[in-house]
Amino acid sequence: MSELPRHPFDDDKLHEECGIFGVVGVPDAANFVALGLHALQHRGQEAGGIVSWAPELGFSSARRFGYVRDNFTSKTLMDTLPGSLAMGHVRYSTAGHKGQTAIRDVQPLFAEFAMGGCAIAHNGNLTNAEAMKHELIQAGSIFQSSSDTECIIHLMARSIQKTIPERMKDALRRVEGAFSVIAMTRSKLIGVRDPLGVRPLVLGRVGNGWALSSETCALDIIGAEFVREIEPGEMVIITPDGIESFHPFAPAKSRFCIFEYVYFSRPDSVIGGRSVYETRRQIGVELAREAPVEADLVCPVPDSGTPAAIGFSQESGIPYAMGIIRNQYMGRTFIEPTAEIRNMGVRLKLNVNRAIIAGKRVVLVDDSVVRGTTSQKIREMILDAGAKEVHFRIASPPTSWPCFYGVDTPDREKLLAAHMTEEQMRVHLGVDSLKFVSLEGLYRATGQEEGRTASPRFCDACFSGEYPIRPSDVVDSGRLQLKRA
Amino acid sequence: MSELPRHPFDDDKLHEECGIFGVVGVPDAANFVALGLHALQHRGQEAGGIVSWAPELGFSSARRFGYVRDNFTSKTLMDTLPGSLAMGHVRYSTAGHKGQTAIRDVQPLFAEFAMGGCAIAHNGNLTNAEAMKHELIQAGSIFQSSSDTECIIHLMARSIQKTIPERMKDALRRVEGAFSVIAMTRSKLIGVRDPLGVRPLVLGRVGNGWALSSETCALDIIGAEFVREIEPGEMVIITPDGIESFHPFAPAKSRFCIFEYVYFSRPDSVIGGRSVYETRRQIGVELAREAPVEADLVCPVPDSGTPAAIGFSQESGIPYAMGIIRNQYMGRTFIEPTAEIRNMGVRLKLNVNRAIIAGKRVVLVDDSVVRGTTSQKIREMILDAGAKEVHFRIASPPTSWPCFYGVDTPDREKLLAAHMTEEQMRVHLGVDSLKFVSLEGLYRATGQEEGRTASPRFCDACFSGEYPIRPSDVVDSGRLQLKRA
Amino acid sequence: MSELPRHPFDDDKLHEECGIFGVVGVPDAANFVALGLHALQHRGQEAGGIVSWAPELGFSSARRFGYVRDNFTSKTLMDTLPGSLAMGHVRYSTAGHKGQTAIRDVQPLFAEFAMGGCAIAHNGNLTNAEAMKHELIQAGSIFQSSSDTECIIHLMARSIQKTIPERMKDALRRVEGAFSVIAMTRSKLIGVRDPLGVRPLVLGRVGNGWALSSETCALDIIGAEFVREIEPGEMVIITPDGIESFHPFAPAKSRFCIFEYVYFSRPDSVIGGRSVYETRRQIGVELAREAPVEADLVCPVPDSGTPAAIGFSQESGIPYAMGIIRNQYMGRTFIEPTAEIRNMGVRLKLNVNRAIIAGKRVVLVDDSVVRGTTSQKIREMILDAGAKEVHFRIASPPTSWPCFYGVDTPDREKLLAAHMTEEQMRVHLGVDSLKFVSLEGLYRATGQEEGRTASPRFCDACFSGEYPIRPSDVVDSGRLQLKRA
Amino acid sequence: MSELPRHPFDDDKLHEECGIFGVVGVPDAANFVALGLHALQHRGQEAGGIVSWAPELGFSSARRFGYVRDNFTSKTLMDTLPGSLAMGHVRYSTAGHKGQTAIRDVQPLFAEFAMGGCAIAHNGNLTNAEAMKHELIQAGSIFQSSSDTECIIHLMARSIQKTIPERMKDALRRVEGAFSVIAMTRSKLIGVRDPLGVRPLVLGRVGNGWALSSETCALDIIGAEFVREIEPGEMVIITPDGIESFHPFAPAKSRFCIFEYVYFSRPDSVIGGRSVYETRRQIGVELAREAPVEADLVCPVPDSGTPAAIGFSQESGIPYAMGIIRNQYMGRTFIEPTAEIRNMGVRLKLNVNRAIIAGKRVVLVDDSVVRGTTSQKIREMILDAGAKEVHFRIASPPTSWPCFYGVDTPDREKLLAAHMTEEQMRVHLGVDSLKFVSLEGLYRATGQEEGRTASPRFCDACFSGEYPIRPSDVVDSGRLQLKRA
Repeated sequence: MSELPRHPFDDDKLHEECGIFGVVGVPDAANFVALGLHALQHRGQEAGGIVSWAPELGFSSARRFGYVRDNFTSKTLMDTLPGSLAMGHVRYSTAGHKGQTAIRDVQPLFAEFAMGGCAIAHNGNLTNAEAMKHELIQAGSIFQSSSDTECIIHLMARSIQKTIPERMKDALRRVEGAFSVIAMTRSKLIGVRDPLGVRPLVLGRVGNGWALSSETCALDIIGAEFVREIEPGEMVIITPDGIESFHPFAPAKSRFCIFEYVYFSRPDSVIGGRSVYETRRQIGVELAREAPVEADLVCPVPDSGTPAAIGFSQESGIPYAMGIIRNQYMGRTFIEPTAEIRNMGVRLKLNVNRAIIAGKRVVLVDDSVVRGTTSQKIREMILDAGAKEVHFRIASPPTSWPCFYGVDTPDREKLLAAHMTEEQMRVHLGVDSLKFVSLEGLYRATGQEEGRTASPRFCDACFSGEYPIRPSDVVDSGRLQLKRA
Repeated sequence: MSELPRHPFDDDKLHEECGIFGVVGVPDAANFVALGLHALQHRGQEAGGIVSWAPELGFSSARRFGYVRDNFTSKTLMDTLPGSLAMGHVRYSTAGHKGQTAIRDVQPLFAEFAMGGCAIAHNGNLTNAEAMKHELIQAGSIFQSSSDTECIIHLMARSIQKTIPERMKDALRRVEGAFSVIAMTRSKLIGVRDPLGVRPLVLGRVGNGWALSSETCALDIIGAEFVREIEPGEMVIITPDGIESFHPFAPAKSRFCIFEYVYFSRPDSVIGGRSVYETRRQIGVELAREAPVEADLVCPVPDSGTPAAIGFSQESGIPYAMGIIRNQYMGRTFIEPTAEIRNMGVRLKLNVNRAIIAGKRVVLVDDSVVRGTTSQKIREMILDAGAKEVHFRIASPPTSWPCFYGVDTPDREKLLAAHMTEEQMRVHLGVDSLKFVSLEGLYRATGQEEGRTASPRFCDACFSGEYPIRPSDVVDSGRLQLKRA
Repeated sequence: MSELPRHPFDDDKLHEECGIFGVVGVPDAANFVALGLHALQHRGQEAGGIVSWAPELGFSSARRFGYVRDNFTSKTLMDTLPGSLAMGHVRYSTAGHKGQTAIRDVQPLFAEFAMGGCAIAHNGNLTNAEAMKHELIQAGSIFQSSSDTECIIHLMARSIQKTIPERMKDALRRVEGAFSVIAMTRSKLIGVRDPLGVRPLVLGRVGNGWALSSETCALDIIGAEFVREIEPGEMVIITPDGIESFHPFAPAKSRFCIFEYVYFSRPDSVIGGRSVYETRRQIGVELAREAPVEADLVCPVPDSGTPAAIGFSQESGIPYAMGIIRNQYMGRTFIEPTAEIRNMGVRLKLNVNRAIIAGKRVVLVDDSVVRGTTSQKIREMILDAGAKEVHFRIASPPTSWPCFYGVDTPDREKLLAAHMTEEQMRVHLGVDSLKFVSLEGLYRATGQEEGRTASPRFCDACFSGEYPIRPSDVVDSGRLQLKRA
Repeated sequence: MSELPRHPFDDDKLHEECGIFGVVGVPDAANFVALGLHALQHRGQEAGGIVSWAPELGFSSARRFGYVRDNFTSKTLMDTLPGSLAMGHVRYSTAGHKGQTAIRDVQPLFAEFAMGGCAIAHNGNLTNAEAMKHELIQAGSIFQSSSDTECIIHLMARSIQKTIPERMKDALRRVEGAFSVIAMTRSKLIGVRDPLGVRPLVLGRVGNGWALSSETCALDIIGAEFVREIEPGEMVIITPDGIESFHPFAPAKSRFCIFEYVYFSRPDSVIGGRSVYETRRQIGVELAREAPVEADLVCPVPDSGTPAAIGFSQESGIPYAMGIIRNQYMGRTFIEPTAEIRNMGVRLKLNVNRAIIAGKRVVLVDDSVVRGTTSQKIREMILDAGAKEVHFRIASPPTSWPCFYGVDTPDREKLLAAHMTEEQMRVHLGVDSLKFVSLEGLYRATGQEEGRTASPRFCDACFSGEYPIRPSDVVDSGRLQLKRA
């Protein structure tokens, strides 16, 4: 039960580690949260949790491994989560710890303070968590999870402030990193984004209540109306009666994660007033302009390459076709019947549509290249099926730096682009041509007509190596050497 | 565990009831079968079974509810299915009996005859099963399942022939209907198609062995080479040493199910030498010619409408776009938080991509309309998202007759097209325009340039009401009144 | 889940293979059956099944591996078994097939005949089942289980009689062996015992209805009043309106299984008007008379040796003590931490009460010796604990012949007493003395003051080798050589 | 899965809340711990946990609801618990919180301190836990469980001592109550008993290593040799190289729990050099002297009344008999078929052996009377079975005060003896006579020839109301009014 199917080529993609959702002021709030988390499932598939609060019963919680749809759909379970205030979290396990996650690591975390209980869930990563944890243990704190979120809880427990929101401000001012946080007390739903606003968080109106969500697609599923994004550095405290806004941090320039546009967010979400789908389609347009090629067909690597492939086809005039078909039922690892069956893992998920590929010059559009292992297998399958030429077009720049802001990235040495040029990668992947969209082109596709400037609007550290927040834990421990400025 | 997620709008689609797969002459044959069944999962999601044979151990079998990937991937289970000869089946439950399927109904069925054991699995439906069953019970046969396949077993048990293949010929000459059958003895893999060849069955070469499969896509997954289709009315008996071919039935004109092209088969399969994907795309081309419309976007209803939508866009020049996004994690039924959330069931699976739909005239391409319930919900979601006009284009003619050849269809009175004209349906669905491809156009898309002739090449009873095999059980019991000739 | 804890030394005991229970004329009959089967759990722990009948719904059934208490206690399941007529079965798996039992082997079996459905369950064994099965397969019957009970079903299916009871008489006259059968149609509960009455079956009155049960202890649990035993060779047909009695077989002298007194039945059951507990205590009295010994303590091997040990103590005047303590939580097989821990399997279940055993001369009373493996381990534990002398007293004669009447016995060569004298066994077991009660003494303990006569009242084949019913299958196949007359 | 069968009349007994076991210096130590916990299962059935330590891997742990035999027997699980140092715990849920135990409440608890990790498990109860917890939360500690053991952890975390043993001394000097504690660091196994030694803890030698256990019966199962009891107030620190002994508390007079002799401990354990079984048998002897009666049979209420019934029979000369038979398969709650079946709960577990009870004057020996509900039902069953007279003899004095030292007792008002005289209880239970052993007699049976003295050797608060440790939390909150001195 613990191993669940994921995206095709899951192990050759970057992974968002979390989605968060909260709602206040509607009856049976936990059911809304379950729906919201279902819509955010692409942000984390390993586990999910929901906490609710109701008069007399107080806080209730349920944490489960596996999909939201498999756990938070039973009446028996949902009846244990009553009340008009609830929040939840879906979690992706980080590569290094896969299979070792304990249920106590599944958020929301919960703590009982002197002035009452508080649940908290967070999307992002604290870059000074290790140092902070060391310090707290010295002072007598006992950590129960391996989650960096627990640092926030212990900082709050030791704050001398009298209210939970004030203690949370205290705590969040002490941590560094990228974080969007949802928390709840017995009467309030609280949302916070880090000063740079690296990770998303939006506000919606549902009935007479309010919702906080990582993405707008989760507002749609519950019929909520999008109100606005929580601002970078903003804390909102929501009760059924209204919303208070605070800015507890020093002001800073916004640096939203550009990879949310490229891959993480759902195509039907809207970020910064801009459709994710349309942005991706526009990346395909940019790619077709930057790296044209003569070919017979443009095919997406399903499903994440689809919008860019449509854009590429529309700009280039080369017909769009479903050259690779995805198995809807995906798959765990089957027992391999014979060593001769190469690429078994890929075949479980994808099949080349031989009848339309054979004898054709094919442009394959994918969203990114991480390790490159999948790209090799796809190239092989396409050639086995009789393609005459294979041209890769990648809807993001070369990924050459790890992320420390809540995305699960391989170590730098495993990133293909960290130690190869585009031409070396082309030879390594064995394709007729390979082109990545430029960082400039990517910025243009997001609507930045001037492209990337000296003071860029996004965090693009995975492409540029310019980290807007110092990744203290890894740098101080010598695990990462920063790019010379 | 018993309720599994299915295609979006599963309950407003026709369903194929089975996929079958067998392999002989390769080590660990059951692992090949598991992979083949995984590739055929779209033909049946309720349950699956595998039987294998090995020297000394004899026949082994495993039957499980749920997906192939969730059951036939554990080494513990697969180790119980040794040998170089194996076969399997995936099953769709029929609407009327949903939830009542017992594990003993899950095929392959198995029987011990005087001359040895025999496993059998079938895709299709026997049209005289009820009469036959009545007769067999009178004679002392005891039925253990509700499957019509068991009639074949009992007829074989009572045959006076000396070998299993001869007994199978005896039995199959007694039954009527549409059937593709795979069977195995301790040394032979047997494949049969009914005289009209209504359901598919193909032969492949894998290593030094052979495979039988419902579709070619399952040959691809195991790296098998497509050899040929089993002919209508043909029986093949396969051992590692070679293939013998028999024609035990009176010759008849082939009437392959045209709906396999429209919806059932996977787009990466090839039928009758023709790509299913390309045929579907061509239906879209025919639709664009037969029923043009001025619009801003062509959007598929995912995923089955996609190839026809691509064809429609290419023929009409109207840009193709992903106007509806499918949730990859689908969903069981969530607890509905409030009555105000309309269309909850649909929202779990699909979300309208508001940002690109708002203010647009949208052509929605779907593969078929059965009850029409889903079409209504989608129209409503699209309009809620701000579309200016909604035009439905359907990649099949109106479905107005039930199928009795192995497809799960609602009763005739529940088929929208059985009692409404196209215009009545348009009004009922509330869209700006609604057009179905013509039966002629559909035939053209399959490569029949002359369209449908007086002696048509396909079974198209669901559209035409012309049943090439008399549905005796339902007609004789008065449950169906045939179209006057 | 499949391996369940059993009696201590389960693998060195003989095992009853079944318990049966049925009830008619009370609301929610299946709940009574669940309770009755729970009380009969000692007769079979591997699996259980219940069938019920209710107007409109017809027959319902549930079959499960594991204990009755773990399956037939959920409201969800029991609600699927409505009606005032129900019956059930608990099953012990036979040694040779352990782990291979399929759920379809779990009784009651069910068949649909031309005149309606019939469920059937049986305790015992048919001695000509193999020959009968061969004959039926030749005639076209298809066997779905490995149960000999299915022969009865097929014989019924082929009978030309018009009613189910008449067909059952037809069928049972064709089979040989020991059987107590419970069957039900949609209106009748039927009970039958074989002509010699080898296996038990009793009738009880519950409210306005009636119950059939293997033992009286199961009448007690549902508050039913014991009415009488079904006679050897009798068939009763019970409806809420009353009971009809038939004698379809040729009259024969009763030969009830004497081992039911020794071990199988529960001590709180009454057989033939005689308390099982009191009979066992009396065996201890006979043992003390036949085989006195000077000792300090009389200790039972728990739990089956307890009544005889009490009798031995009372007759001999040697104090009774709990020298061996049974772990109430029993146990599956633990991982053995070290090879030095001898007798791990035994330690999981029993512990010697060292403080009272050390330095003492101990009489250990056990019910029987089958393979002798457990007796050796117990002797070793007792000596390790410091006992000065160990004297075994066995409350049955030497078990030297296998049973073919529904009891799971090892092959003859594995029975210690089949090839050793009492003295050889004493040396083999390494004890100071070893004595079995005589067959005469055993008969006296059952109330036969004259002891065993030329025409004995019981089946004692396991001790005497005199089989009252010819075990045709094993004799004709050469698997057993009968004792020369 | 969460509701497991327990002792018969489980809800009318007092319950020990825990058993603890640890081992150091043997390979695969966790397997020894699993066996030890299995032998201690009677001390807690709700859940169990094991922690082990191995070089490189560090600490590993597994916590599971349910029986040890059902969880800690799989190789897969046990392989995750490597190393030669391990400890574990079995837990009984307290009445008030039944069903609410979270897996995080299951011990051993674990904490990472600045100087390394520490696991801890405890049997007993801290009488000032509530006050302590309040104080710790004020200081910023975050509690993750509802276990009072967590107080010890937080006190250790805040200690300024440099080593774990020193921090543990610090912490234990701050708490009040009854406790036997086992803890482990990466190199040491630590055992502590509270100053009065209320709960047991013994030391054993196994191979070249050492074991700590609640009872000696768990030393037997792993083949360990009993060395000595840990003394009241003693702390032992054990490494493979040897044992160091400390006495960190002020000296106090030992007050071992006398109820361990009466009911909690297994009869094959030895406490204070005295066999538990023999002590119980001797209580029966005392009872027969103090409260003789003319009768035909002495019957135990199984299983806990058995040793005292044997003693009563031996002293009185009245024959011992199994008048009540226990169902070995116990049972969850079955669906009650009808309201007429009285005493269903009892019937699932026990049945009166009618054949030997009818017409007899019966002495029933039970270990204790708590609420009296079970005694009523048994009396009723015995009379239904035709007993002429029923005389209850109870092998402990009237239980009239709750325990606050680690035993789950009902509130005082629910204890029958708290508000009734012996005669009132006799009338209430409806028996012919009812006698409890005197407190003096009980002391004599434990070997205190002088009986109970002014300075008694045991804690007998449940009988006498004299609490040797002040139950601060309940007294200070007004929940209990102490007996006037």
